[in-house]
Amino acid sequence: MRAIEQVSAMQAWSREARRRDGARIALVPTMGALHDGHLSLVEIARRHADVVVTSVFVNPMQFDRADDFARYPRDLEHDGGLLAAAGVDVLFAPDAKEMYPDAAETVVTVDRLSEPLCGAHRPGHFRGVATVVLKLFNIVQPHVAVFGEKDYQQLALIRRMVRDLHLDIDVVGAPIVREADGLAMSSRNRHLDRDERAAATCLARALGAAEECVAAGERDAAAIVAAATAELAREPRARVEYVAAVHPETLRPLVRLRQLTVPAVHRERRSA
Amino acid sequence: MRAIEQVSAMQAWSREARRRDGARIALVPTMGALHDGHLSLVEIARRHADVVVTSVFVNPMQFDRADDFARYPRDLEHDGGLLAAAGVDVLFAPDAKEMYPDAAETVVTVDRLSEPLCGAHRPGHFRGVATVVLKLFNIVQPHVAVFGEKDYQQLALIRRMVRDLHLDIDVVGAPIVREADGLAMSSRNRHLDRDERAAATCLARALGAAEECVAAGERDAAAIVAAATAELAREPRARVEYVAAVHPETLRPLVRLRQLTVPAVHRERRSA
Repeated sequence: MRAIEQVSAMQAWSREARRRDGARIALVPTMGALHDGHLSLVEIARRHADVVVTSVFVNPMQFDRADDFARYPRDLEHDGGLLAAAGVDVLFAPDAKEMYPDAAETVVTVDRLSEPLCGAHRPGHFRGVATVVLKLFNIVQPHVAVFGEKDYQQLALIRRMVRDLHLDIDVVGAPIVREADGLAMSSRNRHLDRDERAAATCLARALGAAEECVAAGERDAAAIVAAATAELAREPRARVEYVAAVHPETLRPLVRLRQLTVPAVHRERRSA
Repeated sequence: MRAIEQVSAMQAWSREARRRDGARIALVPTMGALHDGHLSLVEIARRHADVVVTSVFVNPMQFDRADDFARYPRDLEHDGGLLAAAGVDVLFAPDAKEMYPDAAETVVTVDRLSEPLCGAHRPGHFRGVATVVLKLFNIVQPHVAVFGEKDYQQLALIRRMVRDLHLDIDVVGAPIVREADGLAMSSRNRHLDRDERAAATCLARALGAAEECVAAGERDAAAIVAAATAELAREPRARVEYVAAVHPETLRPLVRLRQLTVPAVHRERRSA
């Protein structure tokens, strides 16, 4: 595995891989602190391309809270070992100075998709995501990019950005990887103490309750949301930001489900 | 010359030109209604690349006034003849439905560079420019793109966008081409009647007055601006939006000139 820190070196590598080898390049963008969820993205990327580039960059622009940025887990050496073992071809790990050499003036926004859900609670977050992902696309020049469905709003927004800007990139959504007790794997899970870790399983139970509700024939969005919310209410440590049933592409609230959209996050999806 | 109207066909052409032929591609983005200024961009593009793509697209997103968009001159057949004669390889002329198949949600802004000068008088204009140029870059995938210095703020903004987003594209600024009496060539000049056309030469005289002022040793920005403004005031039909002495990259107002920045628009410049 080759490790690259410079933007210009990464661009040169990709240019050569495309031109000389005619290679199909996959990108797996991460913020490091890797877990099995990330490694599943790498595995999926390998099925879609000849070479896999994984980026590790904790992007300051997408953090709405300085303390969250400061304590975000970082362990590049460990990450590098995992990626090499997973057969990654290039680890692209630039520092912030390399990615933002000047105060960033150019900003990419995906208007409506940024507003609801997590966007309402994390001002500027999705602007930071869209901008850094576009930068990574321009640097790595991939044919295909893999993003986890755990960050579903991010995935929907990137699909939209790629379509709107006519980027010649296939976006592949990858299924959530969960711990044995149902908690979605996440780098931030390391911040949880034992009690919080136990309490966090309420998220999977709430989604499960919604899924059962739909499986039993319920199509009224408010009733499905109520079932999930009730499950969260059983956990005293949980503070609800939002529970919503939304259209999988537009993220607009649904009144009635016409297709089984809620369990989509649980099913495996493959792009062409 | 090949004419292409579809985004996917343009992308496929560029992909093949890059991969199979290893060709260096130049893009000259235009809104059509071509004149000798545009043809000079094509000529410069040919010196920087193996193949030249010229786009003709009157971009609705960058017009701040509906009447300006409606009466913007269009003559694709005539444009095609000029471009073929100039040795252009591909004319890319998509319609608005092809460039904006959905209501555009993804918007590119270049914050500070969009605000002053023309930006202050044309709300949303530079957001529309940045977004459509990025779309054209992603569709045509050029190695080099040529823009006229007549739209100097646009050129500065695109240089900045390319740098901020790490686009692997050389931006070449091309000198203004003027009529015999000094008026910069522009598609909108067709809107001028005989008296207006005569009056419009006050712009070149005003720039000339500023240039003489600098040549005579003046370095105080306010004095230089005053010389240009006084020249404009001699023309009763002129209504001044702004006269400003600004830094050539940041476009911030200057107090004193340290280098001969004002005449830069008159001098020929070449990018690497």
